[in-house]
Amino acid sequence: MQSYPSKLLEQAVNELAKLPGIGRKTALRMALHLLKRNIADVEAMGNSIIRMRSDIIYCRECRNISDQELCAICSNPKRDHSLICVVEDIRDVMAIENTGQYNGVYHVLGGIISPMNGIGPQELHIDALIGRVNEVNATEVILALPATIEGDTTNFYLFRKLTGFNLVLSTIARGISIGDELEHTDEVTLGRSILNRTPYESVVTRK
Amino acid sequence: MQSYPSKLLEQAVNELAKLPGIGRKTALRMALHLLKRNIADVEAMGNSIIRMRSDIIYCRECRNISDQELCAICSNPKRDHSLICVVEDIRDVMAIENTGQYNGVYHVLGGIISPMNGIGPQELHIDALIGRVNEVNATEVILALPATIEGDTTNFYLFRKLTGFNLVLSTIARGISIGDELEHTDEVTLGRSILNRTPYESVVTRK
Repeated sequence: MQSYPSKLLEQAVNELAKLPGIGRKTALRMALHLLKRNIADVEAMGNSIIRMRSDIIYCRECRNISDQELCAICSNPKRDHSLICVVEDIRDVMAIENTGQYNGVYHVLGGIISPMNGIGPQELHIDALIGRVNEVNATEVILALPATIEGDTTNFYLFRKLTGFNLVLSTIARGISIGDELEHTDEVTLGRSILNRTPYESVVTRK
Repeated sequence: MQSYPSKLLEQAVNELAKLPGIGRKTALRMALHLLKRNIADVEAMGNSIIRMRSDIIYCRECRNISDQELCAICSNPKRDHSLICVVEDIRDVMAIENTGQYNGVYHVLGGIISPMNGIGPQELHIDALIGRVNEVNATEVILALPATIEGDTTNFYLFRKLTGFNLVLSTIARGISIGDELEHTDEVTLGRSILNRTPYESVVTRK
């Protein structure tokens, strides 16, 4: 066990080491870096973290992180509010927005069903999704969850909850990444890419 | 440029991305992790960083980080106060303390001379070192600075400042790391390890 010359330093290292992917050595490097910066900068950093945690709002429609009660996407009248893309967290929203290919709205679950981590459907914003689908008369729900066992479980749970509604339920396409070699692709992905093959015509005519 | 759904989140990401070795993606992951923790935990983290920066004290003798005016090493009467080991920063103190092989005291320069980064002798605690050497009648000063051009420059500067004092000036041994293969060692290190060879007798009789 490393001994620190100062309790204040040790506490700061302990706190920084709680960040994901940060070990004690990196935390110490960060702490020493902070000591070299001026007090106002360090206060700005500490306070911005605290302010973010205490003041952030989740959009009452899609549960995305927001500064207002209704996020910029949900309050945009140009977006198709009957097309809802279900994602795990806000990073997925940012990734899909970056593609510039999607004009619908989102629904952020805040996680996926994972019995191993004690996350059941109650912990997620699933009831809010069902309510929303009902309210806005959604025409399509796209499931854009990770291709893992937890993602598949969540997909299946949502599939059962959403049958009976008059809507199209789809999932994002799984296949070979653009630029990837077939021989280096795992066999499950390759197998699915053959099962879910796309008519060539629809690929070449897509804008 | 990534657009964030919330200004508060964006500010926190900007601040976290100022930490050394942290890019914007990692900073975002950290911020989302903090949003999932409870408010008290995040406040504890933010405040511990601010408190560390504003309340930390540097030992008036060795300039090491400390909670008191005199650090635990400098106030320990069992340590040899006439033997001073000069290091770049507090991590070096911690590393040498961990070996359990050193019973003298330290002097933390707070950096090394680096004209490229605008760090001259005035920015470092060199005058304090000279004053200390004078005051305690130091018998030996060990230079334990990095084996880089900046380290060598600083060594040479200290060598010139300390000639005239009646003391032994030494540097830590440079050589092949224990467990390293000769063939994989760079030629400068290997060359020095031959020039600075140690009598075998002194190795086997060392406790």
